[in-house]
Amino acid sequence: MVGAGQLARMTCQAAISLGIGFRVLAETPADSAAQVCTGTVTGDYTALPDLVAFARECDVLTFDHEHVPGGHLAALERAAAHGGPAVRPGRAALRYTQDKLAMRERLRALGVPCPRHARVTDLAGVSACAADWGWPIVLKAVTGGYDGRGVWVCGTPAEAAAVLAHPVAVFAEEHIAFDAELAALVARSPHGQAAAYPVVQTVQRGGVCHEVLAPAPGLAAGRAREAQRMALELAAELGVTGLLAVELFAGPGELLVNELAMRPHNSGHWTIEGARTSQFEQHLRAVLNVPLGDPRMAAPQVAMANVFGAGTSGGSPPREDTASPDIFARYEHVMAADPGVKVHLYGKQVRPGRKIGHVTALGSDMVGLRARARRAAAYLATGEEEGDERD
Amino acid sequence: MVGAGQLARMTCQAAISLGIGFRVLAETPADSAAQVCTGTVTGDYTALPDLVAFARECDVLTFDHEHVPGGHLAALERAAAHGGPAVRPGRAALRYTQDKLAMRERLRALGVPCPRHARVTDLAGVSACAADWGWPIVLKAVTGGYDGRGVWVCGTPAEAAAVLAHPVAVFAEEHIAFDAELAALVARSPHGQAAAYPVVQTVQRGGVCHEVLAPAPGLAAGRAREAQRMALELAAELGVTGLLAVELFAGPGELLVNELAMRPHNSGHWTIEGARTSQFEQHLRAVLNVPLGDPRMAAPQVAMANVFGAGTSGGSPPREDTASPDIFARYEHVMAADPGVKVHLYGKQVRPGRKIGHVTALGSDMVGLRARARRAAAYLATGEEEGDERD
Repeated sequence: MVGAGQLARMTCQAAISLGIGFRVLAETPADSAAQVCTGTVTGDYTALPDLVAFARECDVLTFDHEHVPGGHLAALERAAAHGGPAVRPGRAALRYTQDKLAMRERLRALGVPCPRHARVTDLAGVSACAADWGWPIVLKAVTGGYDGRGVWVCGTPAEAAAVLAHPVAVFAEEHIAFDAELAALVARSPHGQAAAYPVVQTVQRGGVCHEVLAPAPGLAAGRAREAQRMALELAAELGVTGLLAVELFAGPGELLVNELAMRPHNSGHWTIEGARTSQFEQHLRAVLNVPLGDPRMAAPQVAMANVFGAGTSGGSPPREDTASPDIFARYEHVMAADPGVKVHLYGKQVRPGRKIGHVTALGSDMVGLRARARRAAAYLATGEEEGDERD
Repeated sequence: MVGAGQLARMTCQAAISLGIGFRVLAETPADSAAQVCTGTVTGDYTALPDLVAFARECDVLTFDHEHVPGGHLAALERAAAHGGPAVRPGRAALRYTQDKLAMRERLRALGVPCPRHARVTDLAGVSACAADWGWPIVLKAVTGGYDGRGVWVCGTPAEAAAVLAHPVAVFAEEHIAFDAELAALVARSPHGQAAAYPVVQTVQRGGVCHEVLAPAPGLAAGRAREAQRMALELAAELGVTGLLAVELFAGPGELLVNELAMRPHNSGHWTIEGARTSQFEQHLRAVLNVPLGDPRMAAPQVAMANVFGAGTSGGSPPREDTASPDIFARYEHVMAADPGVKVHLYGKQVRPGRKIGHVTALGSDMVGLRARARRAAAYLATGEEEGDERD
């Protein structure tokens, strides 16, 4: 797996059960997955020689993120034709996670419902869109955005002008006043076998996922099937191998596709305990081309809450290690208060707003589960009871 | 964790979620846990300097097996009084897993129901026992036995004489014609907090656990509570920190204690998916003295079947690596046939009869679950459908 963040860390855990050799290409030995993976190689995923050297030790290459340059992916695929490791997902599919404008255009061509979009290079272009769609207008970086970065909701021409002043290629999208954000997670293997997880609701703030509720509360069965079908068809159309997460806007009308990811996804962390097969094991099974696992839920309802590094930029310096006395004091409190929540920490240095872990609660009362997961996550983050941040 | 077998391997997986630093003292880098633990130190657990050097890098010491010499444990505990790591469980408790005669005598003194036993040094002593209890007589090695090794069921004086000819200290025990073997698994922390898992049935052949059924089918609720109470009381009486597994004989009369283990135990592997808190996480929480997790089941019923190395001694040479093309061919079959079973392989060299993995099936139909787990385990072991080995 190229990249050694928390997704690779949790994939490493799944690889242990399967008894397969698992390696990560990490930027530094301190990376989340590098801390726990005995097959860690350090190197630069933007440097082809580092990728090639890493690939030589692998039978299959897969990815923790979408930032490997397309040209390098093409070179790795050429090598695969001459005995190198298979690249899964391949460049042709990954392209649509790397270039959001290409993704929009491809989805439009496939007839997949999406927000309206347009190429823009200047304020006149944005204003033309706004004349059609109204303000606010969403500007998105064509490449490099994730977790809310590279997405700007502009309420006025002045705000749009400020974004356009950045030396970043952007396109414009209509702003969707959605009722809920959903995610449909599916897996697809090179054999073409596919499996769909129950559709979940994601609760985002500032474009960052804070909570995931499985299954999506109040989602009509027909709509859930529509989202699953859309994700399965997209996985097949785009030739995805491994996981495909489709982020959707649900409004009163149709479902609209917002984003795609082709890797384990934050919206699927709940599957570790909440589904018969975790998304991490499923991704491995898919890219290794062994039959997929049962994606059904292991409990009637599951709530997941992310743990974010506390504080504000310029506050206290980052801690060296989450296994500090601090975390044990917090465990004391969280685990005594709620012996049933499952805690996952990523071993990441704490920086304000950074995802450093998540908490999962399983049961049959979503309101209660959600409160439990949020409370534990907030306490792990801050050492304090959750404040008035409600929604 | 001293020792790097499969118990340490699965404890390492649990440590990743908790975000704690986990180290193992392995005999070789090929050990099951050493393959997957970045904190591996190689050394000899029978050599005090190796233990002391390992202990210097730890805050708490715990154990994958019961073979660390008692004198070394005492030395480590003296060091703990001067800033060394805590030893959990401590020597006073571990003694009863190392010296089975001392265990029997302590349990007898505590009034815990056990099979009758007697110290014996010669055939006259065994015959005297048999005159009281009848044949067969069980001879047990005082130290060093596990997984059926060090236990001899002797039907005749000649068989007993053959065992006594070994240069091994043994004692005699009455043979129990049990209806079922049960295991009661509990955890206890230094704070004195305790948690009990549902009582399971273990299906053994030749003293080796083959299957675990949770909860024990047909076990009356009162009897299950009695077994849990017995295990909780024993954990407190013996001062156990971490897990205590109590193996029991269930006959028409009372429950009798057979063996004790103070570590994660084969009878608890089902908890990885089958309980809200796995035994491996629970052991870590107990020895780290953070509050214990919910031990309740995550499904109505769970069946676990061990995977054993196939073949007979003197057969084909052991394979280097379970992640061989072989295992992928077997995965293809097992995972296609049953997408719901959970496979755990230990990365161990295959030797005939060696435990190399286990399979878990969750649901609500024990007969079906058991058949599924056995079928998958048998196929993983041999690459063939299960034969006529039924019970």
